Amino acid sequence: MNSHKYAQVKLISKPENMLKTIYTACRTCYSADSPLNIYDCESAQDKEKVLKLINRVISSGHYSTIEHIQISFAISNISRACSHQLVRHRHMSFSQKSQRYVKEKGQFEYLIPETIENNEELKIKFDEFMSKISDFYLELTQAGIPAEDARAVLPNATSTSMVASLNLRELIHLANLRLCTRAQKEIRILVKRMCDEVIKEEEWLKDYLVPKCERFGYCDEDKSCGRKAVRVK
Amino acid sequence: MNSHKYAQVKLISKPENMLKTIYTACRTCYSADSPLNIYDCESAQDKEKVLKLINRVISSGHYSTIEHIQISFAISNISRACSHQLVRHRHMSFSQKSQRYVKEKGQFEYLIPETIENNEELKIKFDEFMSKISDFYLELTQAGIPAEDARAVLPNATSTSMVASLNLRELIHLANLRLCTRAQKEIRILVKRMCDEVIKEEEWLKDYLVPKCERFGYCDEDKSCGRKAVRVK
Amino acid sequence: MNSHKYAQVKLISKPENMLKTIYTACRTCYSADSPLNIYDCESAQDKEKVLKLINRVISSGHYSTIEHIQISFAISNISRACSHQLVRHRHMSFSQKSQRYVKEKGQFEYLIPETIENNEELKIKFDEFMSKISDFYLELTQAGIPAEDARAVLPNATSTSMVASLNLRELIHLANLRLCTRAQKEIRILVKRMCDEVIKEEEWLKDYLVPKCERFGYCDEDKSCGRKAVRVK
Amino acid sequence: MNSHKYAQVKLISKPENMLKTIYTACRTCYSADSPLNIYDCESAQDKEKVLKLINRVISSGHYSTIEHIQISFAISNISRACSHQLVRHRHMSFSQKSQRYVKEKGQFEYLIPETIENNEELKIKFDEFMSKISDFYLELTQAGIPAEDARAVLPNATSTSMVASLNLRELIHLANLRLCTRAQKEIRILVKRMCDEVIKEEEWLKDYLVPKCERFGYCDEDKSCGRKAVRVK
Repeated sequence: MNSHKYAQVKLISKPENMLKTIYTACRTCYSADSPLNIYDCESAQDKEKVLKLINRVISSGHYSTIEHIQISFAISNISRACSHQLVRHRHMSFSQKSQRYVKEKGQFEYLIPETIENNEELKIKFDEFMSKISDFYLELTQAGIPAEDARAVLPNATSTSMVASLNLRELIHLANLRLCTRAQKEIRILVKRMCDEVIKEEEWLKDYLVPKCERFGYCDEDKSCGRKAVRVK
Repeated sequence: MNSHKYAQVKLISKPENMLKTIYTACRTCYSADSPLNIYDCESAQDKEKVLKLINRVISSGHYSTIEHIQISFAISNISRACSHQLVRHRHMSFSQKSQRYVKEKGQFEYLIPETIENNEELKIKFDEFMSKISDFYLELTQAGIPAEDARAVLPNATSTSMVASLNLRELIHLANLRLCTRAQKEIRILVKRMCDEVIKEEEWLKDYLVPKCERFGYCDEDKSCGRKAVRVK
Repeated sequence: MNSHKYAQVKLISKPENMLKTIYTACRTCYSADSPLNIYDCESAQDKEKVLKLINRVISSGHYSTIEHIQISFAISNISRACSHQLVRHRHMSFSQKSQRYVKEKGQFEYLIPETIENNEELKIKFDEFMSKISDFYLELTQAGIPAEDARAVLPNATSTSMVASLNLRELIHLANLRLCTRAQKEIRILVKRMCDEVIKEEEWLKDYLVPKCERFGYCDEDKSCGRKAVRVK
Repeated sequence: MNSHKYAQVKLISKPENMLKTIYTACRTCYSADSPLNIYDCESAQDKEKVLKLINRVISSGHYSTIEHIQISFAISNISRACSHQLVRHRHMSFSQKSQRYVKEKGQFEYLIPETIENNEELKIKFDEFMSKISDFYLELTQAGIPAEDARAVLPNATSTSMVASLNLRELIHLANLRLCTRAQKEIRILVKRMCDEVIKEEEWLKDYLVPKCERFGYCDEDKSCGRKAVRVK
């Protein structure tokens, strides 16, 4: 059982020519030249020059230029509690495993929260309890209750999987919000792994895919973790 | 316990002058007159005339004119399974009871799916099982596990509540989709009650707040319930 | 001709019970009580208490709670240049006067930019030029060219009107962005008048409907107007 | 001058593995298997099988599965009238040439509507008039009027360019709407060329990138062109 590993994340799709596309978008706004010429020009090949422009544009808050880049992830082994948080990001696109249409056949997979896993006694009880829930779920489906109703007994800990896509503007927003210490641990790890997958291929993004306090230099949370000074309101 | 009543829904907020606002929006597109004059003109008071125009505009698919109207609902006693479906409507706004911040103190409230409730033996077992889950949840929180982690054991059946808002275009879309026989029963009843609340005050909307097959005259579902003929593709 | 007055703006629709609705949304997230009970409770009537909670929630960035409030404006006498900027706000809803369907009958109305109006000689030439454009437009339509094609000669200065709606979250975002000195004068005045209309009825919003530098204490623009210190990046 | 060629369109970016990504999204919803295994499985390589599934899913209205695919276009030589229509599609992302920041140096480029171009006399007058507008624009900027104000005299015919991105769900929606005979000719040609660019690489999409009447078998417009029977309402 994958009950303890948290999210498995793999970047499965991103546009070809990410930097060139953003560069063309940025320059199109301020140039008499056509986007096609910009796309094909020599400067678009000069990575250093391109990055300098992109960094300036993002820093000044002109985020629409990075919406052109969309990235897709295959995500599995996250809890339904975590997916309920993730799908609240309304600029994202999701295709999630359905508990209505996919019937669990044996013990369903689940995630143990770390605070419970670290307590040996509670961990054993937790595993036993998941097993009891599984038994009752199977009893229900064997009695003819449809999966969409039997799932009423499945817990928030139940594992789910999905394909999730978002553009670069939303990814930076997601990272700024969900890498914050105040976010729940499971989604923090999920989003960290999404960011790591992207940074592996696009290292220049590492300065943006950070908690908001790192980007803006202050904390605006009601209860701060203390890493950065709270902004005086 | 409110385990059997399904959603409680109350319309808590809508714009003043719903018809007049839509009428002004429709006429502004096609008129040399200013929206303010249109809003204050005599025709805007003539309900029959106003409705005739609005019906024509909606029928021809010019839906942006009804986005100006937003409606807010207080919703309680729906399951987390149901809320997970509802929050997938990304044009809606939600403020939902948090399982991270609100700790259950005694037996949590829950919803029993009808197929289980109708089976006396399974119903008794279901209630007993909910009680066991509640006991384990309380054991966890009393052992110092934070609510955000203890909730891992709470089932999809757990009751939740929210304030939800959406504009008229999205409400019609929601009704067309979720009043369809293929939608799960609980969300069907929830959306029906939202529509009923609206129709009570705006009766003219009753022709739009129906399953899509009623509006379009055919069924486009992969597996049809048979109420309307399947569209040949 | 209304060529010099800039935007005419009137708030035509907003929800009843704005504060109570936001209060209910905020409390629903953190309360074991149902939204309906919160909505009907005594505290929801205590304006001071309600405002204190709302201010705390907005300050900590929990903006989704104010999406429940949508406001509609009747707007006229803005230029097509200005409307092209405004409709780029994709969370807003618009019903705009159509140049395809509304044929100009005489001299079309237009807006003179202040820099031109302040130069007497250029102002006279500008007015004469608008008159020449009007003549050519009328020649085209009289020759049977449809309005949708004749409008090719109409300038950015041409006046337009619309009904525009947006929720409170988007209104604050719009104000923060478009009240900035770096925004073009015409849209700055338009958004200022929209904010004034709202503040007239909801005075508590005056601290949020300001340029972003006023809210956050620093400037993040590439070229700052100097009002606030530029944030070190 | 490019005044007569209408839009120049080039697809500059799309995800690698379009079909495989959609296939994985579709199957993830209905499978006990993880998206990563689905992505790597043999069936995902079987183009015929993959297309059969995708077609079934799209036909039954399960559009969210195709949101994972985003496509970017470099667009130039469209009129500002056309771009004002296009940017109303709020699910799209745009980076458009700015008339505030890009000053016209000589005769600005423009588009002549076909109905005017086909009338020799009006065509000559139109070209002469564009030249007069250009002269006045240059007079204004030479007198020190900033570009953002001088553009007040530039007509709807003025050429613009942009990078525009949208996902496959929105592209199908755009095609269904804007390939309709009731759409204005220029945007119809623009969208046709966007679709052609996509179909060149993904031929299977040709059945979806059509006017809505072709897809649904009937016309829902207020005034039908007659190609398909009007739906009885």
